[in-house]
Amino acid sequence: MNYNINNIPTRTTKPREQGFTMVMDKGLSTRQAEDMIETCGDCIDIVKLGWATSYVTANLDKKLDVYRNAGIPVYLGGTLFEAFIIRNQFDEYRRVLDKYNLSHAEVSDGSITMDHEKKCEYIRILKEQVTVLSEVGSKDAAEIIPPYKWIELMQKELDAGAWKVIGEAREGGNVGLFRSTGEVRSGLVQEILTQIPMEKVLWEAPQKEQQVYFIKLLGANVNLGNIAPNEVIPLETIRLGLRGDTFDFFLNGGGQ
Amino acid sequence: MNYNINNIPTRTTKPREQGFTMVMDKGLSTRQAEDMIETCGDCIDIVKLGWATSYVTANLDKKLDVYRNAGIPVYLGGTLFEAFIIRNQFDEYRRVLDKYNLSHAEVSDGSITMDHEKKCEYIRILKEQVTVLSEVGSKDAAEIIPPYKWIELMQKELDAGAWKVIGEAREGGNVGLFRSTGEVRSGLVQEILTQIPMEKVLWEAPQKEQQVYFIKLLGANVNLGNIAPNEVIPLETIRLGLRGDTFDFFLNGGGQ
Amino acid sequence: MNYNINNIPTRTTKPREQGFTMVMDKGLSTRQAEDMIETCGDCIDIVKLGWATSYVTANLDKKLDVYRNAGIPVYLGGTLFEAFIIRNQFDEYRRVLDKYNLSHAEVSDGSITMDHEKKCEYIRILKEQVTVLSEVGSKDAAEIIPPYKWIELMQKELDAGAWKVIGEAREGGNVGLFRSTGEVRSGLVQEILTQIPMEKVLWEAPQKEQQVYFIKLLGANVNLGNIAPNEVIPLETIRLGLRGDTFDFFLNGGGQ
Repeated sequence: MNYNINNIPTRTTKPREQGFTMVMDKGLSTRQAEDMIETCGDCIDIVKLGWATSYVTANLDKKLDVYRNAGIPVYLGGTLFEAFIIRNQFDEYRRVLDKYNLSHAEVSDGSITMDHEKKCEYIRILKEQVTVLSEVGSKDAAEIIPPYKWIELMQKELDAGAWKVIGEAREGGNVGLFRSTGEVRSGLVQEILTQIPMEKVLWEAPQKEQQVYFIKLLGANVNLGNIAPNEVIPLETIRLGLRGDTFDFFLNGGGQ
Repeated sequence: MNYNINNIPTRTTKPREQGFTMVMDKGLSTRQAEDMIETCGDCIDIVKLGWATSYVTANLDKKLDVYRNAGIPVYLGGTLFEAFIIRNQFDEYRRVLDKYNLSHAEVSDGSITMDHEKKCEYIRILKEQVTVLSEVGSKDAAEIIPPYKWIELMQKELDAGAWKVIGEAREGGNVGLFRSTGEVRSGLVQEILTQIPMEKVLWEAPQKEQQVYFIKLLGANVNLGNIAPNEVIPLETIRLGLRGDTFDFFLNGGGQ
Repeated sequence: MNYNINNIPTRTTKPREQGFTMVMDKGLSTRQAEDMIETCGDCIDIVKLGWATSYVTANLDKKLDVYRNAGIPVYLGGTLFEAFIIRNQFDEYRRVLDKYNLSHAEVSDGSITMDHEKKCEYIRILKEQVTVLSEVGSKDAAEIIPPYKWIELMQKELDAGAWKVIGEAREGGNVGLFRSTGEVRSGLVQEILTQIPMEKVLWEAPQKEQQVYFIKLLGANVNLGNIAPNEVIPLETIRLGLRGDTFDFFLNGGGQ
């Protein structure tokens, strides 16, 4: 940090198992990726190239080099995985991971219906090739999965070999873990935490109020994802109790 | 594209008459314009320098060079045209187009009241100098133009020589084609399409839900405008059925 | 300006006492700061490194050089001042200002409770070191300060030596001067103006409608702050009557 302020929450350091920040890159240029790393490379633990944006962007190789040189792993959004699966192109998907030398991949079923045993089978196969993040929760706002089911799905996916399980929110933060208004489904979150260790969950939380909720519930070192590039620095200040939203919370002994 | 996915909707290619994307540049730097082109120059058919931002930006010549070198035409927002007209400076406006070597121009009356025959006269004069896009719809949310009138205005402006007619939405997507909530005036859109060929209309649709609406109604190759620079790649994935919003739609044979 | 348009409101020029624009930098890269200056350095009077973002950003020295070379003063957000104060580290805060060679500083009490005489004492001390901006208004939406109290606080802070007093809004524009919906507390603003000269107030107004409100009330040369980097150019066009929102206003003699 640039100067000394007393009594700041202790942050974990890279490579983090807890307290990591996943950034959503939905089409950054090479320079924009470099710029984001310049401002705080240590704040960025992993980058997701959102849904199938990697299919379209003309600068994919160059941008992957930037992230690789900064030591930041990259994975392709789950919707891309699903786009290959629904077309019976799983082997081609695996070759894409190899072609771009990717170390991580997401397995999800947010846009398609997939037998859960089959989903776990994909996790088991892919974990031999890469580190797997698996996602629970539908992109369809009308499809409400009850808490006991979230827990069951998450547990089975971790058992199948997922490194972390992701709680779905989309870029907007208005499905899955959240109501259409963006409000946290707080009962769901707390029930999940009775069974699944917090370090195993990556909570997608694109909106500031959602980030504040999780930091107040679980402390500075909660795993948060779908963070927009220009919100990386603001999020870090919220984690440290240096923005109005969590200013009092940490001073009053919160997060201990 | 970077790898093969089967059964992707066929996109038209540049120079496009259908399926083109108009990006709203409201003050990009030279590098930001270059960055946008790097990520997908083929996705950007035309750039609008929003309203009168070109009057203020200090980097106008350099930025126009960037777009010119990328083969992307640029036009100045309609509000600038109106600012000249209301001050009886039409000739000076025409000289501005020449000074900056612009190939396209917009004729609109969203902020001023203009006799429609006079508007068509401006189209007829300008089309001798540049390719003209004309815009229908008021920036005043309270001014509701009935569908039959939209059609009449659009038809007359095409007859006067407009290359495309633009359906107004502003940067916010909350007037003209849309209600103040951003909801599409669907009856209006469908009635317009009974009379005006879809390739002649450029629909301003800055919000994701609005883009999804038009793509589901008219397919991957609908003309969309007022796209923010960081939404160019996301829009392209929606056109291709590679984002959750249109994932099922194209798989189920939509857009055929 | 790039070409001539008649009857444009006269803007003050740098260094401005009135009509200045304060930009909120919440974590820009060095290049992004350069880019913002390229598009209109003359439009940017002062930059705030929002709340405590300067504690986190790894590029602080380099970015400060960019602003310094462009002749744009920088100050650190008030929440950072408060973070030092609540920890009894005021002297260390003063050393930070010196270390980074800063010419301006903010004194605020938006996140902590501070005796007002004590706040004025901080202003008196700091004004010997830097130019002081002091802020009135809580970040807590539930804490409504009545207008007579705003006036009393502002007057005392100016008397203590503040160069300008800032009306609080946060990044979101939903506290202090504004209701939680973003609507201006118009009675409050107008009552303040009966007692405090407009050139002494810097109104935080991040939302477009808020900017339009102040420009229609006080003319092109009102002091506005918390402007996002990509809204600097749009704001300048609103000041000049060259965007739909104030197009009629200035033509009809408004702002005189």
